[in-house]
Amino acid sequence: MKSKPVQVNSGRSRIDRLRLSFSNLRADAFLVTHLPNIQYLCGFTGSAAILLVEPTRSTLFTDSRYTFQAQEQVTGAKVHIAKHGLLRAAAEALKKRRGRLHVAYAPSQVTVAQKATLEKLTGSGARWVSGGDAVESLRAIKDTSELVTMREAATLISEVFAETMSKIKVGLSELQVAAEIEYAIKLKGGSGPSFETIVASGARSAWAHARPSGKLLGKNELVVLDHGAILRGYCSDLTRTVFLGRAPDKVRQLYDAVLEAQQAARKAVAPGVKAGEVDAAARLSLKRHGLAEYFTHSAGHGLGIEVHERPRLARGEKTKLEEGMVITIEPGVYLEGLGGIRIEDDVVVTSNGAEDLTSASREFLEL
Amino acid sequence: MKSKPVQVNSGRSRIDRLRLSFSNLRADAFLVTHLPNIQYLCGFTGSAAILLVEPTRSTLFTDSRYTFQAQEQVTGAKVHIAKHGLLRAAAEALKKRRGRLHVAYAPSQVTVAQKATLEKLTGSGARWVSGGDAVESLRAIKDTSELVTMREAATLISEVFAETMSKIKVGLSELQVAAEIEYAIKLKGGSGPSFETIVASGARSAWAHARPSGKLLGKNELVVLDHGAILRGYCSDLTRTVFLGRAPDKVRQLYDAVLEAQQAARKAVAPGVKAGEVDAAARLSLKRHGLAEYFTHSAGHGLGIEVHERPRLARGEKTKLEEGMVITIEPGVYLEGLGGIRIEDDVVVTSNGAEDLTSASREFLEL
Repeated sequence: MKSKPVQVNSGRSRIDRLRLSFSNLRADAFLVTHLPNIQYLCGFTGSAAILLVEPTRSTLFTDSRYTFQAQEQVTGAKVHIAKHGLLRAAAEALKKRRGRLHVAYAPSQVTVAQKATLEKLTGSGARWVSGGDAVESLRAIKDTSELVTMREAATLISEVFAETMSKIKVGLSELQVAAEIEYAIKLKGGSGPSFETIVASGARSAWAHARPSGKLLGKNELVVLDHGAILRGYCSDLTRTVFLGRAPDKVRQLYDAVLEAQQAARKAVAPGVKAGEVDAAARLSLKRHGLAEYFTHSAGHGLGIEVHERPRLARGEKTKLEEGMVITIEPGVYLEGLGGIRIEDDVVVTSNGAEDLTSASREFLEL
Repeated sequence: MKSKPVQVNSGRSRIDRLRLSFSNLRADAFLVTHLPNIQYLCGFTGSAAILLVEPTRSTLFTDSRYTFQAQEQVTGAKVHIAKHGLLRAAAEALKKRRGRLHVAYAPSQVTVAQKATLEKLTGSGARWVSGGDAVESLRAIKDTSELVTMREAATLISEVFAETMSKIKVGLSELQVAAEIEYAIKLKGGSGPSFETIVASGARSAWAHARPSGKLLGKNELVVLDHGAILRGYCSDLTRTVFLGRAPDKVRQLYDAVLEAQQAARKAVAPGVKAGEVDAAARLSLKRHGLAEYFTHSAGHGLGIEVHERPRLARGEKTKLEEGMVITIEPGVYLEGLGGIRIEDDVVVTSNGAEDLTSASREFLEL
């Protein structure tokens, strides 16, 4: 027998916690199609799966490529290897139940075509009701075992950053630096980067989401490094901006302003605070330096199995922060021609504030 | 001025070729939401975009993170930076047009929630019609410039495999080997792996889609290496299976049977042949060796901007192959306990058969 993960925060399994939403949703079952939600609920990490959660049983539908893997990974659900498509297998299971079931699904994750197929295959056997983001709501609050993993994933990427600083130099290409980072992630036991590593130098650092290119790092250039690791299914996400050479005062002032904004946002974090207020704190701080207009994205996002999950730390976002949420805090400014500066850390919301998961130095590095 | 990609196969731009489908679809416009389709049609590679193609104009909607990148990349469409969501911006553009437009969309790529939002925002200004897979159909046939890039992407991964063979040895972990592979991909100018590299050894090689683990490679074990590179936006995909030590006759016979099946499938490839017939050729060949039941997936898939695209080479698939399609051919057998063997190459369909893009040796390597 393999050991089951311990549920530290609750005597209930994750699947049982989803079942608690059934009465509010007026649902008899929940058809989960989003793979990160399936991983969260039953542990399966394959690329093709549907999880049907019913009051007294759960079934994971996958295909024959994953027979062995599903046997090894799945907890709390029976594995069904579908021969003629996962939707068909799930629909057939539903049709075998008595009466007309109310089946919850996530409208933001099921395509128009999938919904049409499900409706056709289940006919009068099912009525489809919106399950909203019930699983995402569970995922937003991390349990103790998740926090242990996320802390390790954050430490891993912080160490990778420190090692990168000893290797980075003028003349390497952005792609080479990105390759070193992703190599180090895997050597340290990560399963890979949590998103395509960003190494953006010089004028390209003003592209907030630039892909690394063959461009060589030049003297007197800003370099934005935005990188994350996946460790045992959980993501980290860390950004630092460094300067190759001795930075002009103007650049140093920009860096200090971004760091001040990041710390202002971090101080705003506490249970009960609206996510939008954290974004507002960063924006207000930058405004004082006349830089608000160059902050062209949100202050951060939830982090977990996915690199972007609930809550969004965007302007006006009303979701209230809760203890156990893990979020990034990452203001930045982007000036065409001059370049960009972004500073990002991962924090967990605690009973009275925020605790850092990432541990890389925030000092301005001139290399 | 930056140079525009040359359309070698056709005087028409890709967007113009999509417009040719409008009359069949009875559509006045096409709302493209799938990012690989957007990359194909206008060159934009950011992570948030919608492309609205109308008869005499096209508009790319993205957000402020991508202002500079969109200016640099987009060809054949006007860039619109959306302030309040991409769907809203696209819907507002549609509402400005005269009369009630018939707008095509892809039901397999638009979620139920997105469709509801679009319907609400456009009201009587739009009637939504299925655009099927019009863009995927265009993408399935590669033009000359795409084939140049795909040939390079295939050469790149073939070289990476050869280098890996000089480094792989008993005692390295699967993750270390995967890290070396992905590092080499980036050093050779690839933007990254086209999927999470698979290195599966010993009993784990029987998991057709195993993720690499901390398991150390052991003596007398099979190792499946399934890896691909993205080069300038296009994917390659190559699998080889090697043995660490001197393989028992039984393993060598299995390898020979899989190679025979792969070559049988390759010989079946020609314009006009149904995709399912290629799969059937591999299956029939394995059946002669009593191995058909261990071939638990399809014989291959189309390859291009995405690592899985049209056509599918699955059992019974009726899509006919056409000159210019790029497909993988990858039969495999998986025996619990003993392990798995898969051999995969990328080929382009030519006027009278298939031409290899990948060039790694198919001889059975005992290391």
